[in-house]
Amino acid sequence: MRIIGEKINGTRKKVAAAIADRDAGYVTHLATSQAEAGAAWLDLNAGTRPDREPDDLVWLVDTVQAVTDTPLVLDSANPAALRSALERVERTPVINSISGERNRIEGILPLAAEYGTGIVALAISETGIPETATARMDVVRDLISHTRAAGIKDEDVYVDPLVLTVATNNDSAVISLETMRMVRAGFPDVHMTVGLSNVSFGLPARAQINRGFLTLAIAAGLDTAIADPLDKGLQTQILVAEMLLGRDRHCLNYVRASRNGLFPE
Amino acid sequence: MRIIGEKINGTRKKVAAAIADRDAGYVTHLATSQAEAGAAWLDLNAGTRPDREPDDLVWLVDTVQAVTDTPLVLDSANPAALRSALERVERTPVINSISGERNRIEGILPLAAEYGTGIVALAISETGIPETATARMDVVRDLISHTRAAGIKDEDVYVDPLVLTVATNNDSAVISLETMRMVRAGFPDVHMTVGLSNVSFGLPARAQINRGFLTLAIAAGLDTAIADPLDKGLQTQILVAEMLLGRDRHCLNYVRASRNGLFPE
Repeated sequence: MRIIGEKINGTRKKVAAAIADRDAGYVTHLATSQAEAGAAWLDLNAGTRPDREPDDLVWLVDTVQAVTDTPLVLDSANPAALRSALERVERTPVINSISGERNRIEGILPLAAEYGTGIVALAISETGIPETATARMDVVRDLISHTRAAGIKDEDVYVDPLVLTVATNNDSAVISLETMRMVRAGFPDVHMTVGLSNVSFGLPARAQINRGFLTLAIAAGLDTAIADPLDKGLQTQILVAEMLLGRDRHCLNYVRASRNGLFPE
Repeated sequence: MRIIGEKINGTRKKVAAAIADRDAGYVTHLATSQAEAGAAWLDLNAGTRPDREPDDLVWLVDTVQAVTDTPLVLDSANPAALRSALERVERTPVINSISGERNRIEGILPLAAEYGTGIVALAISETGIPETATARMDVVRDLISHTRAAGIKDEDVYVDPLVLTVATNNDSAVISLETMRMVRAGFPDVHMTVGLSNVSFGLPARAQINRGFLTLAIAAGLDTAIADPLDKGLQTQILVAEMLLGRDRHCLNYVRASRNGLFPE
C-alpha cells in the first residue's frame, strides 16, 4: 500500500493563501513532512481558476521539487495547466485524472501518452457516479479500453472506484469495495486508488472510519490511497492489514515499525 | 456482532485465585463490568482439574447469576462439570465446545441436545487444527452433520473457524477468514465465533491487530467473538465495520455511540 500525500491542495484555505501569496514556506513544509512520513507521491492541486491554474500549478511543481525527490501527482482537469506542469516535472508523475467524460478523455489522455505518465481513471461516466458496482465496472472497462488504445500500460493506470460518504448512503462503502473486487479480478495489473476520507464525510470521529474502510479496501485489492501520510493511526492500520492478509513476511515490517515507535506498545 | 465476555477464565491467575478462595467479589466485578459494557454472554471457564471442575464451575455459575441476567457460556470439555452447571443455569446457555474429536462429540453433544443449549463447534479434527480452509470446512461439515443429527438447529450452532497467531504463520488470518467465508456460504443459518486475541499472540501492540482482524472477520461473516467487551477501541471498530458494511441504517448506532462518548471526536 502506497500513500499519495493529499495535503497540498488549493481547496484548503491555508494552501490557497500560500499559492496566492507565493508563500513557499508553507508548501515546502507540507512537501517535506509528507515525504518524510513515507508518502510515495505528493498530490499537487492548485484549486484555482482555469486562467490562473497553469502558473499556479507550475509554481507548486517548482516549489515542491526544490525540496524533495518524491514523485508528483498532477491533480487537475485542465489540459493547459497539466501541459505546463508536465514541462517542468523532473520525475515521472501521475496525472489525476481522467474519467468517462469525453472531454477529459480527449483533453487529458493524450498528455499522459505523450509524456509517459501514470494516470488516475475515475469510475465516473458522462452522467455522474454510477450507483452500482456493476455500472462502475462498465465505466472502468470503457476507460481501460481507452488507456490501452492510447498505448498506456495497465500498470500505469490507477483506477479510482470512488467512495462516497456512508452518511448519505448506507451502501456507499459496500459499492466501492465490490467495485474494487471486480476491478482486481478483471484487470489484475492495474493499480487502484481512492480518496479515502470521502467515506466519512459528515460523520464524527472520521479518522477511525477512514482506517476501518482502508482495512476492508486493502483486502479488496486497493494498493494506493490519497490520504494523510502523517496520520500514524492510518499507517499503523496499513501495517496491520498487510500483516493479516499474509503480505508481511515474518511480520518484519510490523515489528520494525513497533520498534521504531510508530505505535504505542 | 455480539461479544462473549472472555474475562472469567481460570487460566488467568487472578481468576484462578478467586475460584480457589471462593472470592466472589472479584468474579462478580468481572461479571457486572462485562455485562454493563454490553457483553451478550459471559464465558465461564473454571480452568481447574477434572475432579475439581464440577464444583468450581457450579460456584462460578451461582456467583455470576446472583448479579446479572446476562446469559452464560459454559466453557469446559468435561461432561461432568457441564452437567452440574447445566442443572443450575437459569437462562439458556451456550456450551463451549465440541470439536471433531469423537470423545467431545460423544460426551458433550448429547448434553447440548438434552438441555436445548447453544453449542460452539471448533474446526478441530482428531488430528488437530487443519492447515487449510478447505480442510477446516470439511471438519465443520462433519460437525454440522452431527449437530443436525442430534436435533440441534443450525441457528444454535456457533462455528469457531479458529485463528492462530500470524507471528508463527503469515497465512493464519487468511486461512481463518477464508474458512469464515466458506462457512457463511455453506451454512447461512449458523453463527460464527472466534477467540479473537489468538491472532496477535506474541506480537507487540496486540489490541490494534485484534481490531483489524475483527474488521476483516465481520466482513467475512463473523457475528460473535470471544473478546474483552471493556475494550472501547474494539467496540468502536465493531460499530465502524458494521456501518461500512451497510448494516447500520442511517449510521444511527455509530452516531449514538459518538454522542454517548464511546470514542473521542
